[in-house]
Amino acid sequence: MEEMRTVKLTIEYDGTEYCGWQIQPNGITIQEKLEDAIQKLTGTFCRVHGSGRTDRGVHALGQVAHFHTDSEISGNDFARAINAYLPKDISVRESLEVNSGFHSRFSALEKHYCYIIENAKTRPVLDRHKVWWISWDLDFELIKEATSVIVGTHDFTSFTDAERKDEDNTRNVISAEWKNENNRLTFNIQGEGFLYKMVRCLVGTIIEAGRGKISKKEMLDILDAKDRTKAGPTAPPCGLHLKKVIYPEKFNVNNK
Amino acid sequence: MEEMRTVKLTIEYDGTEYCGWQIQPNGITIQEKLEDAIQKLTGTFCRVHGSGRTDRGVHALGQVAHFHTDSEISGNDFARAINAYLPKDISVRESLEVNSGFHSRFSALEKHYCYIIENAKTRPVLDRHKVWWISWDLDFELIKEATSVIVGTHDFTSFTDAERKDEDNTRNVISAEWKNENNRLTFNIQGEGFLYKMVRCLVGTIIEAGRGKISKKEMLDILDAKDRTKAGPTAPPCGLHLKKVIYPEKFNVNNK
Repeated sequence: MEEMRTVKLTIEYDGTEYCGWQIQPNGITIQEKLEDAIQKLTGTFCRVHGSGRTDRGVHALGQVAHFHTDSEISGNDFARAINAYLPKDISVRESLEVNSGFHSRFSALEKHYCYIIENAKTRPVLDRHKVWWISWDLDFELIKEATSVIVGTHDFTSFTDAERKDEDNTRNVISAEWKNENNRLTFNIQGEGFLYKMVRCLVGTIIEAGRGKISKKEMLDILDAKDRTKAGPTAPPCGLHLKKVIYPEKFNVNNK
Repeated sequence: MEEMRTVKLTIEYDGTEYCGWQIQPNGITIQEKLEDAIQKLTGTFCRVHGSGRTDRGVHALGQVAHFHTDSEISGNDFARAINAYLPKDISVRESLEVNSGFHSRFSALEKHYCYIIENAKTRPVLDRHKVWWISWDLDFELIKEATSVIVGTHDFTSFTDAERKDEDNTRNVISAEWKNENNRLTFNIQGEGFLYKMVRCLVGTIIEAGRGKISKKEMLDILDAKDRTKAGPTAPPCGLHLKKVIYPEKFNVNNK
């Protein structure tokens, strides 16, 4: 029996119409669409393993997944071959045959997310599905101050909607920066891993700070409280994008 | 009888689902949606005059239009008031009361368009409705060379699908520049006015040059030929965006 090959996929998707990444009984998911496409292409069912879940309505520019196959299609050709069986709102942007030790989730070193806000009095149109439209006045300096509090290793219990209170909610935020171009605020956050809804809880709370409702001192207090009820609301999913997942150099996978 | 006020609108729209700007018998148009919204808001039908037509599927970030009204709504408040009656793919981004001499079409000095291309082996997702996806290899230097030919005042008969051959097809292209960021090629073109489908004919031909099929010398020959059949194909509408329309300073309208 031939040994199975491992193929890594880099996937872009518009999460608007999906119940998130992971297969579930009551709704269509990205994982399901990928498994269906690969089955149609190769004739065999293959489980597709993602680097992690994304929630209903969240987008990805560079979600990573892998699967095992005995198909003879070359690693680089899978992307376009799978795309022929995918809907317009999901696309495999890159495929690569990798070492059998590679695992999209367990090998991951870092994840990079971005969250996009359009701050304007009137609603945006062309990017309406991928930004959070905010018409309140925001103070960019207050946003940056509140953000500085969360960089580093902290217990982020105040910033997760997870219900399991007994878990270790310590995470390391490697960097968190805002860019302000015209009316477009982009939040780039990099970490070794994130708690359930953590980026959206952080953004929702930082925006409260940007409205002058939470000071930098209060932001510190919220972090220390380890209590979700002290933080701000969860920002809507449409602004959130999983940008990329970083893996160790030994796998020779493309980290650009 | 009170004098009618003149209101200028700056409009963003996603042209994907529309048969262009201008009202026509067999399809829904942006102009129609705006006139309907204003009638619902003010109780009176007002003709909405655009700065010019955009074709089926073409987008706008800053289309300009004006209308006359005796409504008491303040000029700045019209934008959000009209938006309450518009679908999600059309938004008035700004409204302003202007001098009665202002006319969105006849007062216009310049129009700025951009055309966006995603050059990648695999299809894009999140911006799929607003870019032309090209998977061919493109040479950016050849693109810039071909583009240099069209700047200035020329007879652009070779680059229009207009059928009226007796018209004066001389136009002045003030500037035409490409930007290349990652796989995203953005063409910014500014002119005093453009012929029917001129920007899309130019882009379609410049891309043929970028593929190595048309040299700079041949680009000059095509321009000189004044013959549409000599030029390249018309680029698809989805990549084209009317960015802004510029008016004389005397009107004190916002040209940012």
